[in-house]
Amino acid sequence: MDNKDDNKCWDDNNWTISETAYDPQRNTDNGNRYLIANGYMGVRGTLEEFTKEQLAAVNLAGMYDQVGDSWREPLNAPNPLYVELIADGVKLTVLEQSPAEHELKLHYREGVWYRKTGWYVAKGKVRLESERFADMDNPHYMYQRYAVTADHDCGLCIITGIDGDVWDINGPHYRQIKMEAEDGDLYAVASSQDDRITVRVREKIWRPAGSQEEIINEDKKIMRKLSYKLRAGEWFVLTKAVHIATDQDEQSEVPKVFERIQDPYPRNKAAQQAHWQAFWEKAAVIIEGDAAAMQALNFSLYQLHSAAPRHSRNLSIPARGLSGQTYKGAVFWDTEMFMLPFFLYTDPKVAKSLIRYRLDTLPGALAKAFEYGYDGAFYAWESQEEGYEACSDYNVIDVFTGRPMRTYFRDKQVHISAAVVYGIMRYVEFSGDESIWREGGLETVIECARFYYSLLVQKVAGGCYEIRDVIGPDEYHERVNNNGYTNRMAQYTFAAAAGLLERLDKDAGAWPDRETADRIHVRYPVTELKERFAAAARRIYLPQPDENGIIEQFDGYLRLEDVNVDTLRSRLLNEKEYWGGAYGVASETQVIKQADVAIWLTLFADEHSEDVLESNWYYYEARTEHGSSLSACIYAWLACRCKMPNRAYPYFMKSALADWKGGGKEWAGLVYIGGSHLAAAGGAYIDAIHGFAGISFNDGKIRFNPCFPAHWHSMKFSLLVGGNWRKIEIKKVNGEYQIRNTKG
Amino acid sequence: MDNKDDNKCWDDNNWTISETAYDPQRNTDNGNRYLIANGYMGVRGTLEEFTKEQLAAVNLAGMYDQVGDSWREPLNAPNPLYVELIADGVKLTVLEQSPAEHELKLHYREGVWYRKTGWYVAKGKVRLESERFADMDNPHYMYQRYAVTADHDCGLCIITGIDGDVWDINGPHYRQIKMEAEDGDLYAVASSQDDRITVRVREKIWRPAGSQEEIINEDKKIMRKLSYKLRAGEWFVLTKAVHIATDQDEQSEVPKVFERIQDPYPRNKAAQQAHWQAFWEKAAVIIEGDAAAMQALNFSLYQLHSAAPRHSRNLSIPARGLSGQTYKGAVFWDTEMFMLPFFLYTDPKVAKSLIRYRLDTLPGALAKAFEYGYDGAFYAWESQEEGYEACSDYNVIDVFTGRPMRTYFRDKQVHISAAVVYGIMRYVEFSGDESIWREGGLETVIECARFYYSLLVQKVAGGCYEIRDVIGPDEYHERVNNNGYTNRMAQYTFAAAAGLLERLDKDAGAWPDRETADRIHVRYPVTELKERFAAAARRIYLPQPDENGIIEQFDGYLRLEDVNVDTLRSRLLNEKEYWGGAYGVASETQVIKQADVAIWLTLFADEHSEDVLESNWYYYEARTEHGSSLSACIYAWLACRCKMPNRAYPYFMKSALADWKGGGKEWAGLVYIGGSHLAAAGGAYIDAIHGFAGISFNDGKIRFNPCFPAHWHSMKFSLLVGGNWRKIEIKKVNGEYQIRNTKG
Repeated sequence: MDNKDDNKCWDDNNWTISETAYDPQRNTDNGNRYLIANGYMGVRGTLEEFTKEQLAAVNLAGMYDQVGDSWREPLNAPNPLYVELIADGVKLTVLEQSPAEHELKLHYREGVWYRKTGWYVAKGKVRLESERFADMDNPHYMYQRYAVTADHDCGLCIITGIDGDVWDINGPHYRQIKMEAEDGDLYAVASSQDDRITVRVREKIWRPAGSQEEIINEDKKIMRKLSYKLRAGEWFVLTKAVHIATDQDEQSEVPKVFERIQDPYPRNKAAQQAHWQAFWEKAAVIIEGDAAAMQALNFSLYQLHSAAPRHSRNLSIPARGLSGQTYKGAVFWDTEMFMLPFFLYTDPKVAKSLIRYRLDTLPGALAKAFEYGYDGAFYAWESQEEGYEACSDYNVIDVFTGRPMRTYFRDKQVHISAAVVYGIMRYVEFSGDESIWREGGLETVIECARFYYSLLVQKVAGGCYEIRDVIGPDEYHERVNNNGYTNRMAQYTFAAAAGLLERLDKDAGAWPDRETADRIHVRYPVTELKERFAAAARRIYLPQPDENGIIEQFDGYLRLEDVNVDTLRSRLLNEKEYWGGAYGVASETQVIKQADVAIWLTLFADEHSEDVLESNWYYYEARTEHGSSLSACIYAWLACRCKMPNRAYPYFMKSALADWKGGGKEWAGLVYIGGSHLAAAGGAYIDAIHGFAGISFNDGKIRFNPCFPAHWHSMKFSLLVGGNWRKIEIKKVNGEYQIRNTKG
Repeated sequence: MDNKDDNKCWDDNNWTISETAYDPQRNTDNGNRYLIANGYMGVRGTLEEFTKEQLAAVNLAGMYDQVGDSWREPLNAPNPLYVELIADGVKLTVLEQSPAEHELKLHYREGVWYRKTGWYVAKGKVRLESERFADMDNPHYMYQRYAVTADHDCGLCIITGIDGDVWDINGPHYRQIKMEAEDGDLYAVASSQDDRITVRVREKIWRPAGSQEEIINEDKKIMRKLSYKLRAGEWFVLTKAVHIATDQDEQSEVPKVFERIQDPYPRNKAAQQAHWQAFWEKAAVIIEGDAAAMQALNFSLYQLHSAAPRHSRNLSIPARGLSGQTYKGAVFWDTEMFMLPFFLYTDPKVAKSLIRYRLDTLPGALAKAFEYGYDGAFYAWESQEEGYEACSDYNVIDVFTGRPMRTYFRDKQVHISAAVVYGIMRYVEFSGDESIWREGGLETVIECARFYYSLLVQKVAGGCYEIRDVIGPDEYHERVNNNGYTNRMAQYTFAAAAGLLERLDKDAGAWPDRETADRIHVRYPVTELKERFAAAARRIYLPQPDENGIIEQFDGYLRLEDVNVDTLRSRLLNEKEYWGGAYGVASETQVIKQADVAIWLTLFADEHSEDVLESNWYYYEARTEHGSSLSACIYAWLACRCKMPNRAYPYFMKSALADWKGGGKEWAGLVYIGGSHLAAAGGAYIDAIHGFAGISFNDGKIRFNPCFPAHWHSMKFSLLVGGNWRKIEIKKVNGEYQIRNTKG
């Protein structure tokens, strides 16, 4: 990774991440780092000879299955990218032979994965060069090219096909896989355990004339064995086109390309490059003065665009994107609070899909609230299709006893419903698209407000409305009372619902569509609800700054042991032990997992003095472990609000590099949690746009309050505001900012 | 232990517990089992040659000290009972030589401890016989007699004196101990670490003429070395009188007996026997048909009377009596809920001392409530002098990590204040002694009600008053909402306070004393408080029987895993692991530590149908581990209420035998918690009187509703009702109960 700040501008060399040596320690992480995806499927950046042992996988968006009592998790398709290389009878794989040369590269400007590997063999050297991409315009397709040469005549054998022995965390997810070859194509038809989903994988290859093919159909695998007499210096070039579909897809696909005779690779790769070229023309953020930041940030945007469900009307993005089954492939608050802004400002169709996912899963949220005896909508903490709550009551394994630990993410992290409302309101406010109300948005906001209303308690002796026994964003402290962030977001929800009901109540005829207005009036006592929510917004308790300006994260937080993160780390008895829960090292201290008060202050910065923002930044930053990838970007953003761009910068970079650099937490207790970090990617974008560029929106107008890190010269990017692209250029010249905001 | 049910009536042989072989495994337990005490001091039933290694101790009532950050715990006095026996140069101790014969006996009718041990030595046999008792009438005194004989001429050497190297759990508690010999007596003056308490121990001996004495004054010990030429068949008889006092005693004592020249043992032993004889004449419960039950029950009464603070006006009884430092020598709800009835019905002066202890520690309870942000009085869960809360936030050590576990006994076991109120109300109702109000009783009841009032919350959406986030009697389930027992006891407290305030409000002049009435009117808004408490009593939530008649212990209890105790036990990874806490084997199941709903139903049985009582008895009994000695007696009592005396019987016996049989939990995690179980003793009495005899009181009248176990023929006992002793005799003849209630 070339990450040095060389002040070079954006050129071809900066659009890639790469490495030029093979390091088996990086196999797992590289699966995430070199991921290619197109919203429909995520193809882990593993090598062709890898199998489930190295976590090779083609992850399918929004398709979930459950085995027995294990966690539900998304399906990985039978892997159609497997290739085994045999030269003169010797199997060449990095897993068994150290390569003489090895290069791995993700060219994220064009969305193509590259690999070069060479081995010394008895008679000389054998080299392979391969590529792959997931088709952005036709998301059921991916393409692979695999080329081999040698510096000597050589008997080549290539075994390639569909490997149905897929990587599963809680599998196996296929009850059966039927494999067959027909008309020269290979097929795998895999049925999920619950028989709900059938995954069909079909592959066609283009191979050199003169090569021999034999079909091997054995347990869970269907392969072609290709034999070829390779002459010295000749390239054996194989192209594979893959089509993946399921019977649950929104649109069924007919794989037309498979009728072609010609090798489709060059044409489709050109189309792929054109797609990404068009994307970058709008979405790229150009930073002069900091190539490293620019690379990291745009790599983050590559991740977001790759995972975006452009093929769907109501799909969302899981916390770990399409990088595999970790975090159960579930959608968290990450989407609304961290990813949404990027799509809102550059790709509103995707933003709407994310929002619609929540509207369409309202029944799941109503059912969850009912289960707990609450009113309204309690969204799933880990949401799968139809709003199914994937979060169990036991999310962490105790490293000391091997027992599952009762966690409260599912039942007490109630701020999730407010995140849904926040996303909806942000979407409507920014896009002006009020069709969302008609599609269930209004019910969603009202039901979330009803949920919070049913949580409110008040001392019989009097006082504010309170929300007790919750978990805030900082998950290390369970079952706390009056988490400031949660209460403020509940207040936001009450105010949003009250505002909408007020509009409707005043003059239903003035509401954008009569049908929605009528429906709501039939379903709800509008006036009564409006008043109830307005009162709740007024009366809910919000912790206030103390004499030092510090806002207490929850009741009693400031009385906990005040200890620093390193001291706490030194108390660990096992590096994998969980810091939170009832007895974790952090539980009875002020050390927190991630931004908590800081999010509140950042989202509602205008409600607090600069002094309070800054005091709390310093106070909580010193006590935050950043055990979540959702943390750094918030401290960066808030630091920008406090005009501390140089303090913001390392947190911004940490967020932007989350998946490039890796090294994040791969384990929670004994559970593997590695994968892409889409919230960090989205957070880096927020930092750039709202933080360093200082953008805010007011009545469809852009306002600027930039504050660059010392070494930044300029930022250029485009935003889609009020339906029109605006090209923004902010230059810092002699300490002054020059701003251009032109038609894009 | 001869525990067989031989239908013999009450004779001398049944007034003892004894054993006739030496078993080193029983040394610790026997310290509790053979304990003698007189309310001022508790002398563990260890052998004379034992030291702190074998947990020898003379425990002092109500004297506490703290070392560093360790738990505060009661003081053990320098041990004046140490005797070392050397015959012809050979040290004779059970710890080094297996005795040829050994007998240990506690004659609890006369409150005297006996021991006989014989050893074979080179020239024949040496035997010792010893006795001791703690003077019941002069509680600063105890007496020891130590006699040795041999079947051959023998050079005898006895080393005896004061051993200042005392057993401490969290010691050492003495900053310094001064030892000296003066006028033939030995003195130890020990200063506690915080210099608050000075303990003075003085001993005088009477020894045979012809014996030689030499004083040894070495580190923490002052001893006499007595040498004597013992002739075959001669008895060497040593008497020791000990006086123990502290500068914190209510009355300072002048040790007059030390002036005597004559051996005081026979006279004082006779007085001791007379004291106990008088006690038993009133207190004994005679059961015909079940010698075992009678023995166990009266042994329980021995324990209660031994621990009773008859020398004090405001001392209470710790949960572990005077058996040592376990449970920090602290007073728990055990006293009011389990021990009080015995004293109330037989020794009202002691009952009043127990009550006064709570009145006089009200300031501590007010301070604790204030600390937590509550109003009123939150009594200490583990109360030491002045109401000091000895319970820490970390009461259990995790056996897997060795770390202290955050427990919530201190801050969330809020039912303690209601136990105090219950004790006060029971005292006044039964004794008619309303002087308690003048002494602070009225304030105590009001402040406890104010405490509960400040705990009440209500959903903003409406509903009952609730008490959330508590621990009920069943400590395995922490931080639960609406524990039925807690809510019912809070209701009891509200009703009690409202009732008293109503009396006062109606006509202050009609109140027993004008001064109290005036004081309360000045201090409190009487009418307003009365109405507030009355409303709280009406509106507090009480779980109702479900369709099967089962009352849910707390919100959500019946949805927990329903598993039996044995299955749960099989899940243990370590026999010492804690069953409760956040992740204990019981925490997410319906297995409970001890009676919880059962106590509520028992105390307020008249409010429930027989069906409900019985359904809940069966339901909860099957799910109770009885990990607390407070559990069995409740199930026995409730079973009697359900007319199931044969189901009650084993629980009654378990309770009555708690300290005789031993074998209770000696460990909580890694913490030693052995000792006497005074609540079990008190509970056994309750079972006998309220359960099997079926006694209840109504307007000063005794009502009977007996239900004997099948093999019981009659019960005889006395009760002090309305200031007069009543002699009760209940006979079962041909299935009919014949009751005599005569002047005692």
